Amino acid sequence: MRKSKRRTGVDEALLAKCRPGWSLPGEFYRDEQIYHFDVERVWRSGWLFAGHSCEIPNPGDYFTLEVDADPLVVVRAEQGVVRALNNVCRHRGSIICTAASGNAARLVCPYHQWAYGLDGKLIACRGMQADLDKSQLGLHALPVEEVGGLIFVSLAPKPPPFAPARETLAPLLKPQGFNRAKVARAVDYLVGANWKLVWENNRECYHCKLNHPQYIKANFDHYNADDATARVREQVSTAVARSEKKWVAAGLAPTHRQTGMSVFPDAGNNIWFSANRTPLVDGWVTESMDGRPVAPIMGEYKEPGVGTLRVRALPNFWNHSSCDHGVSTRLLPAGPRQTAVRVYWLVDEQAVEGRDYELARLMPFWQLTSEQDWQICERQQKGVNSSAYGPGPYSTFKEYNVESFVRWYLRRMRNS
Amino acid sequence: MRKSKRRTGVDEALLAKCRPGWSLPGEFYRDEQIYHFDVERVWRSGWLFAGHSCEIPNPGDYFTLEVDADPLVVVRAEQGVVRALNNVCRHRGSIICTAASGNAARLVCPYHQWAYGLDGKLIACRGMQADLDKSQLGLHALPVEEVGGLIFVSLAPKPPPFAPARETLAPLLKPQGFNRAKVARAVDYLVGANWKLVWENNRECYHCKLNHPQYIKANFDHYNADDATARVREQVSTAVARSEKKWVAAGLAPTHRQTGMSVFPDAGNNIWFSANRTPLVDGWVTESMDGRPVAPIMGEYKEPGVGTLRVRALPNFWNHSSCDHGVSTRLLPAGPRQTAVRVYWLVDEQAVEGRDYELARLMPFWQLTSEQDWQICERQQKGVNSSAYGPGPYSTFKEYNVESFVRWYLRRMRNS
Amino acid sequence: MRKSKRRTGVDEALLAKCRPGWSLPGEFYRDEQIYHFDVERVWRSGWLFAGHSCEIPNPGDYFTLEVDADPLVVVRAEQGVVRALNNVCRHRGSIICTAASGNAARLVCPYHQWAYGLDGKLIACRGMQADLDKSQLGLHALPVEEVGGLIFVSLAPKPPPFAPARETLAPLLKPQGFNRAKVARAVDYLVGANWKLVWENNRECYHCKLNHPQYIKANFDHYNADDATARVREQVSTAVARSEKKWVAAGLAPTHRQTGMSVFPDAGNNIWFSANRTPLVDGWVTESMDGRPVAPIMGEYKEPGVGTLRVRALPNFWNHSSCDHGVSTRLLPAGPRQTAVRVYWLVDEQAVEGRDYELARLMPFWQLTSEQDWQICERQQKGVNSSAYGPGPYSTFKEYNVESFVRWYLRRMRNS
Repeated sequence: MRKSKRRTGVDEALLAKCRPGWSLPGEFYRDEQIYHFDVERVWRSGWLFAGHSCEIPNPGDYFTLEVDADPLVVVRAEQGVVRALNNVCRHRGSIICTAASGNAARLVCPYHQWAYGLDGKLIACRGMQADLDKSQLGLHALPVEEVGGLIFVSLAPKPPPFAPARETLAPLLKPQGFNRAKVARAVDYLVGANWKLVWENNRECYHCKLNHPQYIKANFDHYNADDATARVREQVSTAVARSEKKWVAAGLAPTHRQTGMSVFPDAGNNIWFSANRTPLVDGWVTESMDGRPVAPIMGEYKEPGVGTLRVRALPNFWNHSSCDHGVSTRLLPAGPRQTAVRVYWLVDEQAVEGRDYELARLMPFWQLTSEQDWQICERQQKGVNSSAYGPGPYSTFKEYNVESFVRWYLRRMRNS
Repeated sequence: MRKSKRRTGVDEALLAKCRPGWSLPGEFYRDEQIYHFDVERVWRSGWLFAGHSCEIPNPGDYFTLEVDADPLVVVRAEQGVVRALNNVCRHRGSIICTAASGNAARLVCPYHQWAYGLDGKLIACRGMQADLDKSQLGLHALPVEEVGGLIFVSLAPKPPPFAPARETLAPLLKPQGFNRAKVARAVDYLVGANWKLVWENNRECYHCKLNHPQYIKANFDHYNADDATARVREQVSTAVARSEKKWVAAGLAPTHRQTGMSVFPDAGNNIWFSANRTPLVDGWVTESMDGRPVAPIMGEYKEPGVGTLRVRALPNFWNHSSCDHGVSTRLLPAGPRQTAVRVYWLVDEQAVEGRDYELARLMPFWQLTSEQDWQICERQQKGVNSSAYGPGPYSTFKEYNVESFVRWYLRRMRNS
Repeated sequence: MRKSKRRTGVDEALLAKCRPGWSLPGEFYRDEQIYHFDVERVWRSGWLFAGHSCEIPNPGDYFTLEVDADPLVVVRAEQGVVRALNNVCRHRGSIICTAASGNAARLVCPYHQWAYGLDGKLIACRGMQADLDKSQLGLHALPVEEVGGLIFVSLAPKPPPFAPARETLAPLLKPQGFNRAKVARAVDYLVGANWKLVWENNRECYHCKLNHPQYIKANFDHYNADDATARVREQVSTAVARSEKKWVAAGLAPTHRQTGMSVFPDAGNNIWFSANRTPLVDGWVTESMDGRPVAPIMGEYKEPGVGTLRVRALPNFWNHSSCDHGVSTRLLPAGPRQTAVRVYWLVDEQAVEGRDYELARLMPFWQLTSEQDWQICERQQKGVNSSAYGPGPYSTFKEYNVESFVRWYLRRMRNS
């Protein structure tokens, strides 16, 4: 039965086939059983990005999400504390909050009106016997952390410490002001690819040149040690030097200094989060189609030339932010060959649609880039499903981060 | 392979986790393997409601249905006898009757025209060798029983005796006149929930107050020992006393006398059927939106004040009937997380749509109530799929019948 | 895990239940595991029809197809040679050619632009380390053969010799001129039935009389030894005699001479291909709705009276050709209960739609016949899924070819 299978580990023979520097054997990208290991060892063991603080500004505000088959509700409780709870009634298992988001003084199950406090405690269950021990029937509260306007939750009973992530991310996130932001729009995708393929795609810009025409106009990261000409290298270091001076003056944290993507994840040290600030191409002050601002300046920024802030957190989050807007991407696993993705566009909380920004100008840069990537991943899934697929070699120049991701992943598969 | 798995029983460790008075472990509501046990031990072992006598009034009339993957045809044969046959050709396995209902002198397979009598005997198979033993190639006739206009079939080689059900149901069903009825309309639903969740929902009215606003106006059964005020109890006993006197005078069988739902199933005595007559709220002569009649009086009733007749038969039938119409609900299993449900509205066979009744007045009371319940069950399925789901306690006041249902079910899982 | 299951064979107990002259036990038509054996032992072991030479007339022309989960590309390379390659990039597994057909000088992966020659050799992979051994990273070239305008490929490392098929098919196909043809139209179907049910349907005309009213007007093959009257037998032999004389004079290969379908496959001798020429009913010069020509004469034919040419190749091809057009049917497995079918209508390459032929006259005969058969197969699948299904006897007069097909199939299941 499924349960017992889950307790065993990935087949040793299959792990032995994983060749350093090469992509994973096909089973990892398509099999039901490996997917269940992924859910247990990756998705139910570390920290997951759930949403933004600004989505639930007031006590009682909540949003819901599903991690594989696990429905969660994230709610702002009393004193502004954020809580994450299993969105499953302890009585007979109904979903409690049925909307994507809302506001509630108590979480009341629509089936028999069992009512829970925003901390998960069972407050009322009219109709039940008097001797019922309510204290044993609360909603399980999951570990939850907020940093710089991002909310992380964990399905692990004892998650790894969050402090190192906070230390790294807090100072870099602070000036972006996600705490004083609002979600201008979010778009949901059901991408027909294993979540690891989506990550591998994210971890290299080798594919950018032909697949992301708008992206490469604004950014440097498709250039790498092997193919950046002297002129490009010069361009990059000038941009970096100029920017860095300005940023330090403005109190902004230092930056990524080379061509190529910044190194992440750090599989050897088991680091699942990172952030850096890097310049945009001259003439681009934001990641928009023409490089011109698409919304009012956000956060603590005084002027537009702040380059781009990039944040990533395994297994399910990345964010690219410019002076005027930020774009978050959240992954949730939805089967061995499917990933539920939400892309959020954030602007200053005071910005008014129509007056201060237009979705038609705000969204295309990342909507195009994202949808181009989903198509790439779906084509790859189709090939990886084939009996003809076998692991291929990663570029040491351009796919070092993909290789790190695979190492980070296999460590989880091997250890637990 | 699947076949051999089916022969084994439910894991003992899982059965040991079933706690009396608490809902079942999640596996029972979602796993493929448990579903196969359910099909074998519940759906292929007892009696199933197939349809109404009045759907096939004349010789040759038939209707088809599917129990999990088993297609059946129920046909009125010679001398008015009802027969149930596997709707699968003995030649190469094609479905024989391809329509939902019809009339046929013989059952002729559309593939190669093998022709079967209405008793299942192979009559003709032109094109086959002369020495073929036709007597060995008939359609297997399933046990079938008719009572009060309801047709029950069994997929078991040796089903339990039907006589006890007949004894109980016949006198109560007789005045309703389903033998002289017609189906005014039937609606099919594919409900995204395990069949047991659909039953558990049916076996309590704890959920009625907020979920079924129209239902509770007409009925008393959402009141229970714990929450019926003195005034409500008074109301109920007045209604019961007044009704009972009248009903006995009119030759109607006695009634359910308390607040709360009548007790069913009787798991201890293994009773899978029941029926009772109970009063409606004052002012309601039928289960319609406003309590006023929606069709001509049915059956042997002389006047409207006959309350409501309720019939149930595990694992797949319930019926609520008023003086002027009856509503049957038939469940058929369609996977671990899906149930095919048909709801039928029956009126007197002489009633003419447009003249004697309007669907827009006949249907809403039970269409709303049913669809509210399907939504509840689908929300519950979603939560029960979660790793966070665990069994919860039943209310001893309000969910005694759910607890009985679970006991009835587990007896089947343990014994066979 | 799936992989290891695949290596084992079909359960001996199940094979023992296969009774000569009777249809297969239900597991063969519905189970996931048997389907995987089918893919390995049938679909990845012999020769498969991929498409027509005329679909890729020029160097660089290609079309794609999928055999179960294996994406292939068939391309006309230099010097007009046809090659078949796995359509899966050796880098990270993306599909390379994403269109159904096209023209390309090189096969370039859309993900990172790895470029392969039309022979599969890896030519360029800009961005990869210099020491990468490109010679080890080409696309695997599959065995491919062309005969009479038909392209066959094999997924087997060492396929059976193709020469016997060429010897039989080449002379019969030559006059039809598929090398100088074009596909006027192709229609794709996803048929809800196991591929073996689709073949079994094809291998008998016992079902034709009532299911294919247009087909039986033009053909003799629904008559068999048992039911052809003296008058029919007379008609057939007159038609055969008259035709044969004419055909031999015209240099056409001899013909099928009896009532009933020609014998195929020859399971005893393991023959998976066959072709024959047989007369049409008097007045029918082509398989069109009224028997009149629907396109210009094809190939080397001088006049219309050439009867009908029939070609079959297990496991996935049949073709019926008349003087003016040919119809090919290609099956591809798409799961235990699904088959992807493409039906192609071919006419002379010079024929111009609107001037020389109308699709509305060209297509109905075989479109109707095909769609009637898909419906039959889907009904049969529904019955075969039932626990009530069991093997039934084949007609020795009318289903000898179905029996041969089953024998041919079981030989593969038993041996390998």
